[in-house]
Amino acid sequence: MLQLYFAPNTCALATHIALEEAGADYTTRRVDLRSNEQRGADYLAINPKGRVPALATDRGVLTETPAMLAYVAQAFPAAGLAPLDDPFAFAQAQAFNSYLCSTVHVAHAHRMRGYRWTDDEAAIAAMQRFAPRSVGACFELIEQTMLLGPWVMGETYTICDPYLFTLAQWLEGDGVDPATLPKVIAHRRRVSERPAVQRALAAELAPA
Amino acid sequence: MLQLYFAPNTCALATHIALEEAGADYTTRRVDLRSNEQRGADYLAINPKGRVPALATDRGVLTETPAMLAYVAQAFPAAGLAPLDDPFAFAQAQAFNSYLCSTVHVAHAHRMRGYRWTDDEAAIAAMQRFAPRSVGACFELIEQTMLLGPWVMGETYTICDPYLFTLAQWLEGDGVDPATLPKVIAHRRRVSERPAVQRALAAELAPA
Repeated sequence: MLQLYFAPNTCALATHIALEEAGADYTTRRVDLRSNEQRGADYLAINPKGRVPALATDRGVLTETPAMLAYVAQAFPAAGLAPLDDPFAFAQAQAFNSYLCSTVHVAHAHRMRGYRWTDDEAAIAAMQRFAPRSVGACFELIEQTMLLGPWVMGETYTICDPYLFTLAQWLEGDGVDPATLPKVIAHRRRVSERPAVQRALAAELAPA
Repeated sequence: MLQLYFAPNTCALATHIALEEAGADYTTRRVDLRSNEQRGADYLAINPKGRVPALATDRGVLTETPAMLAYVAQAFPAAGLAPLDDPFAFAQAQAFNSYLCSTVHVAHAHRMRGYRWTDDEAAIAAMQRFAPRSVGACFELIEQTMLLGPWVMGETYTICDPYLFTLAQWLEGDGVDPATLPKVIAHRRRVSERPAVQRALAAELAPA
């Protein structure tokens, strides 16, 4: 049995959606970021990084969204969530997800979590002011060079789609004008219409 | 035929080593970061992100180190560079590499490339001062919770090892005291003794 540790409005949503798309048998466990539960001893025993998401399996705990997404795709091959038999195509999907993780999410994190990289209050404020530009540049590159359409990888919905959808939730909050990103916004709408996505969102937004 | 676009002293080394370990038939192409070649039209046509590394294949270009490492492991299965038939173990290896990419490398990048996240000179200097703490905290977590030994994943050398080795090259430059990281430093030495690693290093450090 799988258990997903998540918090609403975090990148945990990507794996949550993938589990729904895969028809996985899983439960969820909400981690309360407001009370800093993710830094408490109980949660650190699950994920020493003190972050969500984490995916508890019968064999141990997995972390890091790109790894968890590839795991869901491989553990539930019938769902067809990644080109598992084609190393090149699989690497393309993984490269997209790695870019989201290491560049796009990181640019976003400078708006609210600048304390990860400095303890200087003025520097944190400077990072915050810059986030619309850095996040905007990432999404512009996605719009122009990566998002093939209708899905990220083209004709087939993959583990790239719920991840892009998740990060695209934050565009307006990051001060990026969605009107400059017609393909990304159309993709966001397209993903939002999937029943699996609606189930995951409803579960995350239900009262704790 | 594969061609690796690299620059010395960058994370391209991880994939370079993996290609050597795999016995792959490949060539390398040095990108001159000092003349900003990576932002020139020729290179942007290869990798619109304007970064190294990139791996040109007969089917197109791959980017992002975790994706490229998994690709090398899958394209050369006989080299045994990843637990390809075990989705959970493969996800563990990928989670480690994703952490290196999105957290460790990012912490390091704040020392020299803070302009990615702000245009405020004082904020860039503040990030630079903080890098020893953020990079140090990452490696402490690796030392205490991730590096099983003798290799990252335990008894078997995988795509995690050249990647950790590559980022551990930068510890002293980042102002982290190696004496606090005995397991990481022993691992760095162990990896450095491998013939494939010595071949990749020699090729990267040869005169352009």
